[in-house]
Amino acid sequence: MRVAFLGLGLIGGSLALATRSPERHVVAWTPRGDGPRAALSAGAIDEVASSRDEAVQGADLVILAAPPLEILEHLRWLGDVRGTMARSATVTDVASTKTAISVAAREAGLPFVGGHPMAGLETSGFGAADAQLFRDRPWILTEALPEADREVVERLALDAGARVIGMGAGDHDRAVAAISHLPLVASAALVETVLGVEGETAPRETADALELAAGGWASMTRLARGDVAMATGIAATNRDALVDQLLAYRDRIDEWLTLLDRPEPPDADALERRFGGARERAGRERT
Amino acid sequence: MRVAFLGLGLIGGSLALATRSPERHVVAWTPRGDGPRAALSAGAIDEVASSRDEAVQGADLVILAAPPLEILEHLRWLGDVRGTMARSATVTDVASTKTAISVAAREAGLPFVGGHPMAGLETSGFGAADAQLFRDRPWILTEALPEADREVVERLALDAGARVIGMGAGDHDRAVAAISHLPLVASAALVETVLGVEGETAPRETADALELAAGGWASMTRLARGDVAMATGIAATNRDALVDQLLAYRDRIDEWLTLLDRPEPPDADALERRFGGARERAGRERT
Repeated sequence: MRVAFLGLGLIGGSLALATRSPERHVVAWTPRGDGPRAALSAGAIDEVASSRDEAVQGADLVILAAPPLEILEHLRWLGDVRGTMARSATVTDVASTKTAISVAAREAGLPFVGGHPMAGLETSGFGAADAQLFRDRPWILTEALPEADREVVERLALDAGARVIGMGAGDHDRAVAAISHLPLVASAALVETVLGVEGETAPRETADALELAAGGWASMTRLARGDVAMATGIAATNRDALVDQLLAYRDRIDEWLTLLDRPEPPDADALERRFGGARERAGRERT
Repeated sequence: MRVAFLGLGLIGGSLALATRSPERHVVAWTPRGDGPRAALSAGAIDEVASSRDEAVQGADLVILAAPPLEILEHLRWLGDVRGTMARSATVTDVASTKTAISVAAREAGLPFVGGHPMAGLETSGFGAADAQLFRDRPWILTEALPEADREVVERLALDAGARVIGMGAGDHDRAVAAISHLPLVASAALVETVLGVEGETAPRETADALELAAGGWASMTRLARGDVAMATGIAATNRDALVDQLLAYRDRIDEWLTLLDRPEPPDADALERRFGGARERAGRERT
Protein backbone atom coordinates (compact mmCIF):
# COMPACT_ATOMS: atom_id res chain seq x y z
CA MET A 1 0.00 0.00 0.00
CA ARG A 2 1.40 3.36 -1.04
CA VAL A 3 0.75 6.20 1.40
CA ALA A 4 1.47 9.85 0.53
CA PHE A 5 1.74 12.63 3.09
CA LEU A 6 1.32 16.22 1.92
CA GLY A 7 2.57 18.04 5.02
CA LEU A 8 4.68 16.36 7.69
CA GLY A 9 4.88 18.45 10.85
CA LEU A 10 3.91 17.51 14.40
CA ILE A 11 0.71 15.67 13.48
CA GLY A 12 1.76 14.13 10.16
CA GLY A 13 5.16 13.19 11.56
CA SER A 14 3.67 11.64 14.67
CA LEU A 15 1.26 9.67 12.49
CA ALA A 16 4.07 8.43 10.25
CA LEU A 17 6.03 7.31 13.33
CA ALA A 18 3.00 5.70 14.97
CA THR A 19 1.88 3.69 11.93
CA ARG A 20 5.21 2.46 10.59
CA SER A 21 4.64 -0.92 8.97
CA PRO A 22 6.28 -3.04 6.25
CA GLU A 23 2.88 -3.13 4.55
CA ARG A 24 2.97 0.60 3.90
CA HIS A 25 5.37 2.38 1.59
CA VAL A 26 5.30 5.97 2.82
CA VAL A 27 6.29 8.98 0.74
CA ALA A 28 6.08 12.56 1.97
CA TRP A 29 6.22 16.03 0.51
CA THR A 30 6.21 19.47 2.11
CA PRO A 31 6.90 22.84 0.49
CA ARG A 32 10.41 23.10 1.95
CA GLY A 33 11.13 19.39 2.40
CA ASP A 34 12.75 19.72 5.85
CA GLY A 35 10.21 17.50 7.62
CA PRO A 36 10.38 14.68 5.03
CA ARG A 37 14.20 14.70 5.02
CA ALA A 38 14.31 14.52 8.84
CA ALA A 39 11.66 11.79 8.79
CA LEU A 40 13.61 9.75 6.24
CA SER A 41 16.74 9.97 8.43
CA ALA A 42 14.67 8.89 11.42
CA GLY A 43 13.28 5.92 9.48
CA ALA A 44 9.73 7.26 9.80
CA ILE A 45 9.10 7.30 6.02
CA ASP A 46 10.49 5.46 2.99
CA GLU A 47 10.83 8.24 0.47
CA VAL A 48 11.03 12.01 0.12
CA ALA A 49 9.06 13.32 -2.86
CA SER A 50 10.44 16.30 -4.74
CA SER A 51 6.98 17.46 -5.82
CA ARG A 52 3.34 16.98 -4.92
CA ASP A 53 2.82 15.18 -8.25
CA GLU A 54 5.57 12.70 -7.45
CA ALA A 55 4.14 12.13 -3.94
CA VAL A 56 0.59 11.24 -4.99
CA GLN A 57 1.58 9.24 -8.09
CA GLY A 58 0.00 5.79 -7.66
CA ALA A 59 -0.96 6.53 -4.03
CA ASP A 60 -3.59 4.35 -2.35
CA LEU A 61 -3.97 6.74 0.54
CA VAL A 62 -3.24 10.48 0.50
CA ILE A 63 -2.98 12.09 3.94
CA LEU A 64 -3.28 15.88 4.00
CA ALA A 65 -1.34 16.90 7.10
CA ALA A 66 -0.80 20.60 6.41
CA PRO A 67 -2.48 23.63 8.03
CA PRO A 68 -6.18 24.02 7.06
CA LEU A 69 -5.75 26.68 4.37
CA GLU A 70 -3.02 24.68 2.64
CA ILE A 71 -5.24 21.61 2.77
CA LEU A 72 -7.96 23.51 0.91
CA GLU A 73 -5.45 24.30 -1.80
CA HIS A 74 -4.20 20.68 -1.91
CA LEU A 75 -7.78 19.47 -2.37
CA ARG A 76 -8.41 21.79 -5.33
CA TRP A 77 -5.17 20.62 -6.91
CA LEU A 78 -5.88 16.93 -6.19
CA GLY A 79 -9.18 17.27 -8.03
CA ASP A 80 -7.20 18.09 -11.17
CA VAL A 81 -4.66 15.27 -10.86
CA ARG A 82 -6.79 12.57 -9.29
CA GLY A 83 -6.27 10.29 -12.29
CA THR A 84 -2.63 9.86 -11.21
CA MET A 85 -3.57 8.31 -7.84
CA ALA A 86 -4.40 4.59 -7.63
CA ARG A 87 -7.89 3.81 -8.96
CA SER A 88 -9.19 2.93 -5.47
CA ALA A 89 -7.32 5.74 -3.73
CA THR A 90 -8.68 7.44 -0.60
CA VAL A 91 -7.93 10.96 0.58
CA THR A 92 -8.05 11.99 4.24
CA ASP A 93 -6.82 14.88 6.36
CA VAL A 94 -5.96 15.65 9.98
CA ALA A 95 -7.14 19.26 10.22
CA SER A 96 -8.95 20.82 13.19
CA THR A 97 -11.95 21.94 11.13
CA LYS A 98 -14.06 19.74 8.91
CA THR A 99 -16.94 21.48 7.10
CA ALA A 100 -14.97 23.75 4.75
CA ILE A 101 -12.55 20.93 3.98
CA SER A 102 -15.33 18.37 3.33
CA VAL A 103 -17.04 20.82 0.98
CA ALA A 104 -13.78 21.43 -0.91
CA ALA A 105 -13.19 17.67 -1.23
CA ARG A 106 -16.69 17.14 -2.56
CA GLU A 107 -16.33 20.00 -5.03
CA ALA A 108 -13.06 18.44 -6.22
CA GLY A 109 -14.85 15.11 -6.76
CA LEU A 110 -12.45 13.24 -4.45
CA PRO A 111 -13.01 10.02 -2.46
CA PHE A 112 -12.63 11.71 0.91
CA VAL A 113 -12.93 10.87 4.62
CA GLY A 114 -12.41 13.86 6.91
CA GLY A 115 -10.34 13.13 9.99
CA HIS A 116 -9.34 15.00 13.13
CA PRO A 117 -7.05 13.42 15.72
CA MET A 118 -7.75 15.28 18.98
CA ALA A 119 -4.17 15.62 20.09
CA GLY A 120 -1.64 18.35 19.88
CA LEU A 121 1.10 20.20 21.61
CA GLU A 122 2.21 23.82 21.59
CA THR A 123 5.28 22.63 19.72
CA SER A 124 5.27 22.10 15.97
CA GLY A 125 7.32 20.55 13.18
CA PHE A 126 8.58 17.00 12.62
CA GLY A 127 11.21 17.54 15.32
CA ALA A 128 8.40 17.52 17.90
CA ALA A 129 6.70 14.39 16.46
CA ASP A 130 5.90 11.62 18.92
CA ALA A 131 4.68 8.10 18.08
CA GLN A 132 2.57 8.12 21.27
CA LEU A 133 0.74 11.37 20.49
CA PHE A 134 -2.56 9.73 19.50
CA ARG A 135 -2.53 6.93 22.08
CA ASP A 136 -6.06 6.64 23.57
CA ARG A 137 -7.05 10.04 22.15
CA PRO A 138 -10.26 10.52 20.13
CA TRP A 139 -9.87 10.56 16.34
CA ILE A 140 -12.95 12.00 14.68
CA LEU A 141 -13.96 10.65 11.28
CA THR A 142 -16.69 12.50 9.42
CA GLU A 143 -19.23 10.80 7.19
CA ALA A 144 -17.92 9.35 3.93
CA LEU A 145 -18.93 7.14 1.03
CA PRO A 146 -18.05 4.55 0.01
CA GLU A 147 -17.53 2.47 3.15
CA ALA A 148 -14.23 1.10 1.84
CA ASP A 149 -12.64 4.53 2.09
CA ARG A 150 -13.64 4.89 5.69
CA GLU A 151 -12.18 1.49 6.56
CA VAL A 152 -8.76 2.45 5.21
CA VAL A 153 -8.66 5.61 7.29
CA GLU A 154 -10.13 3.93 10.36
CA ARG A 155 -7.38 1.31 10.21
CA LEU A 156 -4.77 4.08 10.14
CA ALA A 157 -6.27 5.81 13.19
CA LEU A 158 -6.51 2.53 15.12
CA ASP A 159 -2.91 1.66 14.22
CA ALA A 160 -1.92 5.01 15.71
CA GLY A 161 -3.58 3.94 18.97
CA ALA A 162 -6.51 6.36 18.75
CA ARG A 163 -10.20 5.80 19.57
CA VAL A 164 -12.29 6.35 16.42
CA ILE A 165 -15.44 8.46 16.81
CA GLY A 166 -17.84 9.11 13.94
CA MET A 167 -19.40 12.58 13.79
CA GLY A 168 -20.93 14.89 11.20
CA ALA A 169 -18.66 17.71 10.01
CA GLY A 170 -21.04 20.43 11.26
CA ASP A 171 -21.41 18.88 14.70
CA HIS A 172 -17.66 18.45 14.88
CA ASP A 173 -16.98 22.07 13.98
CA ARG A 174 -19.43 23.42 16.54
CA ALA A 175 -18.00 21.15 19.24
CA VAL A 176 -14.37 22.08 18.63
CA ALA A 177 -15.29 25.76 18.30
CA ALA A 178 -16.39 25.50 21.94
CA ILE A 179 -13.65 23.40 23.50
CA SER A 180 -10.70 24.25 21.31
CA HIS A 181 -11.07 27.27 19.00
CA LEU A 182 -12.69 29.68 21.48
CA PRO A 183 -9.96 28.80 24.04
CA LEU A 184 -7.35 29.50 21.35
CA VAL A 185 -8.65 33.00 20.62
CA ALA A 186 -9.30 33.66 24.33
CA SER A 187 -5.66 32.81 25.00
CA ALA A 188 -4.38 35.06 22.18
CA ALA A 189 -6.65 37.92 23.33
CA LEU A 190 -5.31 37.54 26.88
CA VAL A 191 -1.74 37.87 25.65
CA GLU A 192 -2.76 40.93 23.62
CA THR A 193 -4.50 42.51 26.60
CA VAL A 194 -1.45 42.24 28.84
CA LEU A 195 1.39 42.53 26.33
CA GLY A 196 -0.21 44.75 23.68
CA VAL A 197 -0.45 44.22 19.92
CA GLU A 198 1.78 45.24 17.03
CA GLY A 199 1.93 48.98 16.66
CA GLU A 200 0.71 49.67 20.20
CA THR A 201 2.79 50.31 23.27
CA ALA A 202 2.30 47.59 25.86
CA PRO A 203 0.23 48.67 28.87
CA ARG A 204 2.29 50.16 31.65
CA GLU A 205 1.56 47.30 34.09
CA THR A 206 3.45 44.88 31.87
CA ALA A 207 7.01 45.26 33.08
CA ASP A 208 6.10 44.74 36.72
CA ALA A 209 3.56 42.08 35.96
CA LEU A 210 5.60 39.64 33.96
CA GLU A 211 8.21 39.21 36.62
CA LEU A 212 5.42 37.87 38.82
CA ALA A 213 3.76 35.60 36.29
CA ALA A 214 3.12 32.18 37.76
CA GLY A 215 1.59 28.90 36.63
CA GLY A 216 -1.79 30.47 35.88
CA TRP A 217 -0.34 32.80 33.28
CA ALA A 218 1.67 30.01 31.66
CA SER A 219 -1.39 27.80 31.54
CA MET A 220 -3.67 30.48 30.06
CA THR A 221 -1.19 31.55 27.38
CA ARG A 222 -0.07 28.09 26.27
CA LEU A 223 -2.49 27.98 23.32
CA ALA A 224 -1.35 31.42 22.13
CA ARG A 225 2.16 29.97 21.82
CA GLY A 226 1.00 27.28 19.35
CA ASP A 227 1.47 27.04 15.61
CA VAL A 228 0.41 30.26 13.86
CA ALA A 229 -0.50 28.77 10.46
CA MET A 230 -2.74 26.20 12.14
CA ALA A 231 -4.41 28.85 14.31
CA THR A 232 -4.97 31.05 11.26
CA GLY A 233 -6.45 28.18 9.28
CA ILE A 234 -8.71 27.22 12.15
CA ALA A 235 -10.11 30.73 12.53
CA ALA A 236 -10.50 31.14 8.77
CA THR A 237 -12.19 27.78 8.11
CA ASN A 238 -14.38 27.53 11.22
CA ARG A 239 -15.31 31.15 11.34
CA ASP A 240 -19.08 30.90 11.81
CA ALA A 241 -18.97 28.53 14.77
CA LEU A 242 -16.08 30.46 16.29
CA VAL A 243 -17.96 33.76 15.98
CA ASP A 244 -20.95 32.22 17.78
CA GLN A 245 -18.68 31.13 20.62
CA LEU A 246 -16.88 34.48 20.80
CA LEU A 247 -20.20 36.32 21.01
CA ALA A 248 -21.31 34.01 23.83
CA TYR A 249 -17.96 34.49 25.57
CA ARG A 250 -18.22 38.27 25.31
CA ASP A 251 -21.67 38.03 26.90
CA ARG A 252 -20.12 36.14 29.85
CA ILE A 253 -17.39 38.75 30.22
CA ASP A 254 -20.12 41.41 30.21
CA GLU A 255 -21.94 39.55 32.99
CA TRP A 256 -18.77 39.63 35.08
CA LEU A 257 -18.41 43.35 34.37
CA THR A 258 -21.99 43.90 35.47
CA LEU A 259 -21.18 42.12 38.74
CA LEU A 260 -17.98 44.08 39.34
CA ASP A 261 -18.21 47.46 37.64
CA ARG A 262 -20.84 49.23 39.73
CA PRO A 263 -20.97 51.94 42.37
CA GLU A 264 -21.99 49.63 45.22
CA PRO A 265 -19.49 47.44 47.09
CA PRO A 266 -18.85 44.07 45.45
CA ASP A 267 -21.48 41.42 46.13
CA ALA A 268 -19.30 38.66 47.55
CA ASP A 269 -22.15 36.14 47.63
CA ALA A 270 -22.90 36.65 43.95
CA LEU A 271 -19.19 36.34 43.08
CA GLU A 272 -18.91 33.18 45.14
CA ARG A 273 -21.92 31.60 43.43
CA ARG A 274 -20.42 32.43 40.08
CA PHE A 275 -16.91 31.10 40.81
CA GLY A 276 -18.42 28.13 42.65
CA GLY A 277 -20.64 27.24 39.71
CA ALA A 278 -17.75 27.44 37.25
CA ARG A 279 -15.54 25.33 39.49
CA GLU A 280 -18.23 22.73 39.96
CA ARG A 281 -18.92 22.45 36.23
CA ALA A 282 -15.28 22.46 35.22
CA GLY A 283 -14.42 19.85 37.84
CA ARG A 284 -17.29 17.57 36.90
CA GLU A 285 -15.98 17.45 33.34
CA ARG A 286 -12.33 17.26 34.31
CA THR A 287 -10.22 15.97 31.48
CA MET B 1 9.69 33.52 68.76
CA ARG B 2 5.97 32.83 68.82
CA VAL B 3 4.29 32.63 65.41
CA ALA B 4 0.50 32.49 64.98
CA PHE B 5 -1.25 31.42 61.80
CA LEU B 6 -4.86 32.45 61.27
CA GLY B 7 -5.75 30.23 58.33
CA LEU B 8 -3.72 27.16 57.40
CA GLY B 9 -4.60 25.88 53.93
CA LEU B 10 -2.36 25.35 50.92
CA ILE B 11 -0.35 28.56 51.35
CA GLY B 12 -0.24 28.77 55.16
CA GLY B 13 0.41 25.04 55.47
CA SER B 14 3.19 25.13 52.89
CA LEU B 15 4.74 28.09 54.70
CA ALA B 16 4.58 26.30 58.07
CA LEU B 17 6.24 23.24 56.52
CA ALA B 18 8.88 25.32 54.72
CA THR B 19 9.92 27.41 57.74
CA ARG B 20 9.96 24.78 60.48
CA SER B 21 12.63 25.75 63.00
CA PRO B 22 13.36 25.17 66.68
CA GLU B 23 13.54 28.95 67.04
CA ARG B 24 9.86 29.32 66.20
CA HIS B 25 6.96 28.10 68.29
CA VAL B 26 4.08 27.87 65.82
CA VAL B 27 0.42 27.92 66.76
CA ALA B 28 -2.42 27.84 64.25
CA TRP B 29 -6.14 28.48 64.20
CA THR B 30 -8.75 28.07 61.50
CA PRO B 31 -12.55 28.26 61.80
CA ARG B 32 -12.97 24.47 61.62
CA GLY B 33 -9.56 23.41 62.90
CA ASP B 34 -9.02 20.61 60.37
CA GLY B 35 -5.88 22.16 58.88
CA PRO B 36 -4.18 22.83 62.24
CA ARG B 37 -4.97 19.31 63.53
CA ALA B 38 -3.53 17.74 60.36
CA ALA B 39 -0.52 20.06 60.56
CA LEU B 40 0.11 19.10 64.20
CA SER B 41 0.03 15.40 63.27
CA ALA B 42 2.44 16.11 60.43
CA GLY B 43 4.80 17.95 62.77
CA ALA B 44 4.38 21.18 60.82
CA ILE B 45 3.18 23.20 63.81
CA ASP B 46 3.59 23.01 67.60
CA GLU B 47 0.10 23.81 68.82
CA VAL B 48 -3.52 23.97 67.72
CA ALA B 49 -5.34 27.01 69.10
CA SER B 50 -8.99 26.63 70.02
CA SER B 51 -9.73 30.30 69.34
CA ARG B 52 -8.27 33.28 67.55
CA ASP B 53 -7.63 34.94 70.91
CA GLU B 54 -5.61 31.97 72.11
CA ALA B 55 -3.64 31.90 68.85
CA VAL B 56 -2.47 35.52 68.89
CA GLN B 57 -1.87 35.71 72.68
CA GLY B 58 1.76 36.79 73.09
CA ALA B 59 2.49 36.31 69.37
CA ASP B 60 5.59 37.96 67.90
CA LEU B 61 4.44 37.34 64.34
CA VAL B 62 0.84 36.88 63.18
CA ILE B 63 0.46 35.41 59.69
CA LEU B 64 -2.94 35.88 58.08
CA ALA B 65 -3.22 32.97 55.66
CA ALA B 66 -6.96 32.94 55.01
CA PRO B 67 -8.88 34.03 51.87
CA PRO B 68 -8.82 37.83 51.32
CA LEU B 69 -12.26 38.63 52.74
CA GLU B 70 -11.55 36.67 55.93
CA ILE B 71 -8.24 38.49 56.24
CA LEU B 72 -10.08 41.82 56.21
CA GLU B 73 -12.22 40.58 59.05
CA HIS B 74 -9.19 39.28 60.98
CA LEU B 75 -7.51 42.69 60.64
CA ARG B 76 -10.52 44.53 62.08
CA TRP B 77 -10.63 42.09 64.97
CA LEU B 78 -6.86 42.26 65.55
CA GLY B 79 -7.13 46.04 65.88
CA ASP B 80 -9.34 45.45 68.92
CA VAL B 81 -7.14 42.82 70.59
CA ARG B 82 -3.69 44.05 69.58
CA GLY B 83 -2.72 44.60 73.21
CA THR B 84 -2.67 40.81 73.69
CA MET B 85 0.08 40.29 71.10
CA ALA B 86 3.75 40.77 72.07
CA ARG B 87 4.71 44.43 72.34
CA SER B 88 6.96 44.23 69.23
CA ALA B 89 4.57 42.00 67.26
CA THR B 90 4.34 42.16 63.47
CA VAL B 91 1.33 41.20 61.35
CA THR B 92 1.65 39.97 57.78
CA ASP B 93 -0.53 38.19 55.24
CA VAL B 94 -0.19 36.04 52.13
CA ALA B 95 -3.20 37.24 50.12
CA SER B 96 -3.28 37.84 46.36
CA THR B 97 -4.41 41.47 46.70
CA LYS B 98 -2.74 44.15 48.75
CA THR B 99 -4.38 47.59 48.66
CA ALA B 100 -7.63 46.80 50.46
CA ILE B 101 -5.77 44.73 53.04
CA SER B 102 -3.10 47.39 53.65
CA VAL B 103 -5.81 50.00 54.15
CA ALA B 104 -7.64 47.77 56.62
CA ALA B 105 -4.41 47.12 58.54
CA ARG B 106 -3.68 50.84 58.72
CA GLU B 107 -7.22 51.60 59.86
CA ALA B 108 -6.83 48.97 62.58
CA GLY B 109 -3.58 50.63 63.71
CA LEU B 110 -1.56 47.42 63.27
CA PRO B 111 2.19 47.00 62.63
CA PHE B 112 1.69 45.45 59.20
CA VAL B 113 3.76 44.25 56.25
CA GLY B 114 1.69 43.06 53.30
CA GLY B 115 2.98 39.92 51.62
CA HIS B 116 2.14 37.90 48.54
CA PRO B 117 4.02 34.73 47.70
CA MET B 118 3.53 34.23 43.94
CA ALA B 119 2.90 30.52 44.06
CA GLY B 120 -0.18 28.41 44.01
CA LEU B 121 -1.85 25.33 42.74
CA GLU B 122 -5.39 24.53 41.72
CA THR B 123 -5.54 22.34 44.82
CA SER B 124 -6.33 23.76 48.24
CA GLY B 125 -6.22 22.85 51.92
CA PHE B 126 -3.40 21.71 54.22
CA GLY B 127 -3.50 18.28 52.57
CA ALA B 128 -2.06 19.87 49.42
CA ALA B 129 0.66 21.80 51.28
CA ASP B 130 4.19 21.46 49.98
CA ALA B 131 7.38 22.70 51.65
CA GLN B 132 8.86 23.41 48.20
CA LEU B 133 5.96 25.60 47.01
CA PHE B 134 7.80 28.92 47.38
CA ARG B 135 11.23 27.76 46.26
CA ASP B 136 12.70 30.40 43.88
CA ARG B 137 9.31 32.05 43.49
CA PRO B 138 8.79 35.82 43.95
CA TRP B 139 7.40 36.92 47.33
CA ILE B 140 6.12 40.47 47.17
CA LEU B 141 6.42 42.64 50.28
CA THR B 142 4.64 45.98 50.27
CA GLU B 143 5.97 49.08 52.00
CA ALA B 144 5.90 49.07 55.79
CA LEU B 145 7.17 50.96 58.78
CA PRO B 146 9.04 50.40 60.96
CA GLU B 147 11.89 48.60 59.21
CA ALA B 148 12.08 45.99 61.97
CA ASP B 149 8.68 44.62 60.96
CA ARG B 150 9.78 44.18 57.40
CA GLU B 151 12.91 42.31 58.45
CA VAL B 152 10.90 39.73 60.40
CA VAL B 153 8.67 39.01 57.42
CA GLU B 154 11.53 39.08 54.93
CA ARG B 155 13.37 36.45 57.02
CA LEU B 156 10.27 34.24 56.88
CA ALA B 157 10.01 34.54 53.07
CA LEU B 158 13.72 33.84 52.62
CA ASP B 159 13.51 30.84 54.93
CA ALA B 160 10.74 29.52 52.70
CA GLY B 161 13.14 29.72 49.74
CA ALA B 162 11.42 32.65 48.01
CA ARG B 163 12.94 35.71 46.30
CA VAL B 164 11.75 38.86 48.08
CA ILE B 165 10.58 41.74 45.86
CA GLY B 166 9.49 45.09 47.27
CA MET B 167 6.56 46.78 45.54
CA GLY B 168 3.86 49.31 46.36
CA ALA B 169 0.41 47.86 47.05
CA GLY B 170 -1.19 49.70 44.13
CA ASP B 171 1.47 48.64 41.64
CA HIS B 172 1.18 45.09 42.92
CA ASP B 173 -2.57 45.03 42.52
CA ARG B 174 -2.47 46.37 38.97
CA ALA B 175 0.24 43.89 38.02
CA VAL B 176 -1.54 40.83 39.39
CA ALA B 177 -4.86 42.01 37.94
CA ALA B 178 -3.17 41.61 34.54
CA ILE B 179 -1.24 38.37 34.93
CA SER B 180 -3.36 36.55 37.48
CA HIS B 181 -6.84 37.94 38.16
CA LEU B 182 -7.90 38.61 34.57
CA PRO B 183 -6.77 35.07 33.63
CA LEU B 184 -8.84 33.73 36.54
CA VAL B 185 -12.05 35.41 35.38
CA ALA B 186 -11.28 34.62 31.71
CA SER B 187 -11.01 30.95 32.70
CA ALA B 188 -14.28 30.99 34.68
CA ALA B 189 -16.06 32.80 31.83
CA LEU B 190 -14.78 30.19 29.38
CA VAL B 191 -16.21 27.38 31.50
CA GLU B 192 -19.50 29.28 31.72
CA THR B 193 -19.61 29.84 27.96
CA VAL B 194 -19.21 26.17 27.18
CA LEU B 195 -20.88 24.52 30.18
CA GLY B 196 -23.51 27.14 31.07
CA VAL B 197 -24.25 28.76 34.42
CA GLU B 198 -26.61 27.88 37.24
CA GLY B 199 -30.21 28.11 36.14
CA GLU B 200 -29.41 27.92 32.44
CA THR B 201 -29.36 24.86 30.25
CA ALA B 202 -25.88 24.15 28.93
CA PRO B 203 -25.47 24.95 25.23
CA ARG B 204 -26.31 22.03 22.97
CA GLU B 205 -22.72 21.62 21.74
CA THR B 206 -21.60 20.62 25.21
CA ALA B 207 -22.23 16.90 25.25
CA ASP B 208 -20.38 16.28 22.01
CA ALA B 209 -17.68 18.75 22.81
CA LEU B 210 -16.49 17.52 26.16
CA GLU B 211 -15.72 14.07 24.91
CA LEU B 212 -13.21 15.71 22.60
CA ALA B 213 -11.63 18.09 25.10
CA ALA B 214 -7.87 17.91 24.90
CA GLY B 215 -4.93 19.58 26.62
CA GLY B 216 -5.96 23.07 25.53
CA TRP B 217 -9.26 22.86 27.37
CA ALA B 218 -7.62 21.48 30.51
CA SER B 219 -5.03 24.21 30.43
CA MET B 220 -7.55 27.04 29.89
CA THR B 221 -9.92 25.85 32.63
CA ARG B 222 -7.33 25.06 35.29
CA LEU B 223 -7.73 28.40 37.07
CA ALA B 224 -11.52 28.01 37.13
CA ARG B 225 -10.98 24.82 39.14
CA GLY B 226 -9.12 26.67 41.91
CA ASP B 227 -10.25 27.67 45.37
CA VAL B 228 -13.60 29.51 45.28
CA ALA B 229 -13.19 31.57 48.47
CA MET B 230 -9.83 32.83 47.27
CA ALA B 231 -11.20 33.70 43.82
CA THR B 232 -14.14 35.52 45.40
CA GLY B 233 -11.87 37.48 47.72
CA ILE B 234 -9.56 38.40 44.86
CA ALA B 235 -12.39 39.75 42.71
CA ALA B 236 -13.97 41.57 45.65
CA THR B 237 -10.76 43.18 46.95
CA ASN B 238 -9.05 44.00 43.65
CA ARG B 239 -12.16 45.04 41.83
CA ASP B 240 -11.01 48.30 40.25
CA ALA B 241 -7.86 46.93 38.66
CA LEU B 242 -9.71 43.78 37.59
CA VAL B 243 -12.48 45.82 35.95
CA ASP B 244 -9.86 47.80 33.99
CA GLN B 245 -8.35 44.55 32.74
CA LEU B 246 -11.73 43.02 31.90
CA LEU B 247 -12.70 46.09 29.89
CA ALA B 248 -9.41 45.90 27.98
CA TYR B 249 -9.93 42.16 27.43
CA ARG B 250 -13.43 42.72 26.10
CA ASP B 251 -12.01 45.27 23.65
CA ARG B 252 -9.57 42.62 22.37
CA ILE B 253 -12.39 40.10 21.96
CA ASP B 254 -14.30 42.76 20.04
CA GLU B 255 -11.31 43.28 17.76
CA TRP B 256 -11.30 39.53 17.00
CA LEU B 257 -15.03 39.70 16.30
CA THR B 258 -14.47 42.61 13.91
CA LEU B 259 -11.89 40.50 12.08
CA LEU B 260 -14.12 37.42 11.89
CA ASP B 261 -17.76 38.50 11.96
CA ARG B 262 -18.18 40.20 8.61
CA PRO B 263 -19.77 39.45 5.25
CA GLU B 264 -16.45 39.14 3.35
CA PRO B 265 -14.33 36.00 3.43
CA PRO B 266 -11.88 35.85 6.37
CA ASP B 267 -8.71 37.89 5.91
CA ALA B 268 -6.12 35.16 6.47
CA ASP B 269 -3.22 37.60 6.40
CA ALA B 270 -4.77 39.74 9.11
CA LEU B 271 -5.51 36.65 11.23
CA GLU B 272 -1.96 35.41 10.78
CA ARG B 273 -0.48 38.76 11.83
CA ARG B 274 -2.66 38.71 14.91
CA PHE B 275 -1.89 35.13 15.98
CA GLY B 276 1.75 35.63 15.03
CA GLY B 277 2.03 38.76 17.15
CA ALA B 278 0.45 37.06 20.16
CA ARG B 279 2.70 34.05 19.80
CA GLU B 280 5.79 36.19 19.49
CA ARG B 281 4.93 38.24 22.56
CA ALA B 282 3.87 35.28 24.66
CA GLY B 283 6.98 33.34 23.71
CA ARG B 284 9.33 36.22 24.41
CA GLU B 285 7.97 36.37 27.96
CA ARG B 286 7.76 32.61 28.43
CA THR B 287 7.65 31.69 32.10
